[in-house]
Amino acid sequence: MKFTLKDFDEKARTGLIETGRGQIHTPTFMPVGTQGTVKAMSPDELKEIGAEIILSNTYHLYLRPGHEIIHQLGGLHKFMNWDKPILTDSGGFQIYSLSSLRKITEDGVEFRSHIDGSLHFLSPEKAMEIQVSLGSDIAMAFDECTPYPAEYDYAMKSLTLTTRWARSCKQFLSSLQPSAFSHQPFLFGIIQGGMYKDLRKKSLEDLVEIGFDGYAAGGLSVGEPKEEMYDIIEFIAPLMPENRPRYLMGVGDLMDILVAVENGFDMFDCVMPTRNARNGTLFTSRGRISIKRTEFKADADPLDPDCDCYTCRNYSKAYLRHLFLSKEILSMRLNTIHNLYFYLDFFRKMREAINSGTFKEFKRYWSEILQAKAVG
Amino acid sequence: MKFTLKDFDEKARTGLIETGRGQIHTPTFMPVGTQGTVKAMSPDELKEIGAEIILSNTYHLYLRPGHEIIHQLGGLHKFMNWDKPILTDSGGFQIYSLSSLRKITEDGVEFRSHIDGSLHFLSPEKAMEIQVSLGSDIAMAFDECTPYPAEYDYAMKSLTLTTRWARSCKQFLSSLQPSAFSHQPFLFGIIQGGMYKDLRKKSLEDLVEIGFDGYAAGGLSVGEPKEEMYDIIEFIAPLMPENRPRYLMGVGDLMDILVAVENGFDMFDCVMPTRNARNGTLFTSRGRISIKRTEFKADADPLDPDCDCYTCRNYSKAYLRHLFLSKEILSMRLNTIHNLYFYLDFFRKMREAINSGTFKEFKRYWSEILQAKAVG
Repeated sequence: MKFTLKDFDEKARTGLIETGRGQIHTPTFMPVGTQGTVKAMSPDELKEIGAEIILSNTYHLYLRPGHEIIHQLGGLHKFMNWDKPILTDSGGFQIYSLSSLRKITEDGVEFRSHIDGSLHFLSPEKAMEIQVSLGSDIAMAFDECTPYPAEYDYAMKSLTLTTRWARSCKQFLSSLQPSAFSHQPFLFGIIQGGMYKDLRKKSLEDLVEIGFDGYAAGGLSVGEPKEEMYDIIEFIAPLMPENRPRYLMGVGDLMDILVAVENGFDMFDCVMPTRNARNGTLFTSRGRISIKRTEFKADADPLDPDCDCYTCRNYSKAYLRHLFLSKEILSMRLNTIHNLYFYLDFFRKMREAINSGTFKEFKRYWSEILQAKAVG
Repeated sequence: MKFTLKDFDEKARTGLIETGRGQIHTPTFMPVGTQGTVKAMSPDELKEIGAEIILSNTYHLYLRPGHEIIHQLGGLHKFMNWDKPILTDSGGFQIYSLSSLRKITEDGVEFRSHIDGSLHFLSPEKAMEIQVSLGSDIAMAFDECTPYPAEYDYAMKSLTLTTRWARSCKQFLSSLQPSAFSHQPFLFGIIQGGMYKDLRKKSLEDLVEIGFDGYAAGGLSVGEPKEEMYDIIEFIAPLMPENRPRYLMGVGDLMDILVAVENGFDMFDCVMPTRNARNGTLFTSRGRISIKRTEFKADADPLDPDCDCYTCRNYSKAYLRHLFLSKEILSMRLNTIHNLYFYLDFFRKMREAINSGTFKEFKRYWSEILQAKAVG
């Protein structure tokens, strides 16, 4: 994996990840395509708004339609008609958050599907096999997501297991043939350790010793207070290898992202922009808007006068409100286009700020907007 | 309204309707945009698949968001970002099919909204006012949709009322100022009369005496057996003025459309392609397909190998099945694109068949496919 750092602004940094399927400018935001589609979007629309990489969920695709079927059909890129990079998670987090009856052993996790209750077993080996058969560009090591709160002992045992699994993932991946339609995925290790700094440090050091193409912080944004999360972010980011991409998993609040980028994180994913869009909460350069509010009933203005997305170029707030209240599919489409465009544009501007040494001003400017009460 | 007939193949005919907002080649199919959007589609996609006109529902837009708001925002075309022709129905059929507590008087209909139960009154004058304020290109006269079955006496009284209302519509429309953003709509009269031929004939003759830009057959496909509907279609079409567009309202089954075109109808609308799409029933050149079926689980082929739509060019049946089972929004989008493309393409080919004098062969060929059992 080729990762080139471009500019630094104190600890914040810009860079370029190069893969066989295209470039990724960092810091980058990955829209989430859980079930082989970013909800409400077409691949063409994702390209149009400038997405360079998306995330897809191993757990979901393994359960439905099944990775063997996707493999047989030529891989996930072909299946979903997306030719740019895809990062696949390992399934660990979804087992933690969605499935029932988990039984964790040294070998892996037994769990019941959230779809039909059927019994399944995922292990480091299985997680690698699935991600390779999907044709993933960046695979994640299989981890146990440490819950919050967790006792010190539990967090230590959990990270030890995660580290052991990470080693198994790397070994097993190197023994696997790449899929005919794809390069072998790059592999990222996942740092756990709960809210304990010494455990986080140990987790990271053990992973670095094994050696990965990139490093991710997992087990954050799982219910802990913001201060605790920020504390871990500030602590761990500077310790992570400088010449490898640093990925903060599942954290998508823009304020949190500003803090993480300030400390040197490069990659992010979250359902927040897409999920909020479907619920009618829209991000704008003046703050958040709830599109259902009566004050927009006859509002001829676009959502965001400073936005160049398809939605803002063509539709009024009054129309978007009407579509939302009428529960029209186009409501979810136009709102999602806008929110994702807003996120990707925010990242573009953030990279420019880092490149021009003005990240501090950028952060101060946006912090005020993001922390203000919703404007509508 | 400029309507030019191009070719005849026995009673079937092709023609061209010219409006200030663009041409409409007939026979034409109008996708239904009930609430100011054709469900799951963007206006750009509608253009891409070749839609030349859409239908929008006066009843729905009057109730939500309200025609005054749409007027204030510059009309329906601007509101929904669609600059081609729009035909608006009069609301009569929706009052009949959706609302409760209807009270029909000489002046109009009192009814309760299906959304919130609020009390409303629509009249010929009000229906014209609404359609003008929306900026409609083709307005429909306000009618009472005669239910099926209906006694002879009821059908006669109903059509007499519809005729009286039609006259009021024409008179009132001529007294209204057109909206600043639109030409004054062309006005179509609606033939009622239930399943009684003499009443249908009387209804038509009375309307022709008043004089309209086009004539529509209403009150069909409301529960009557196909034979009765075909009987009325065959009876009434040849009696309708040759030099005016003939519109068969709400009939969208392709077999029915073949019969109607054979007898000289020019315009059609129906929710069938869009609603079926959302339910996973897809039209193909080999017959209907239910996309959820297990046999498509790993099917790498497109829905229809003979189809050039975006969906068929880019996605496998296996992917479409996966999206449908996963209840993804993209499922409804891709299915709708395909079904509407299929309909519009069917109409293109039908016009070619008429122009080249091969409509009979066209009808025979498609009848077999359309009447066969679903293939999947």
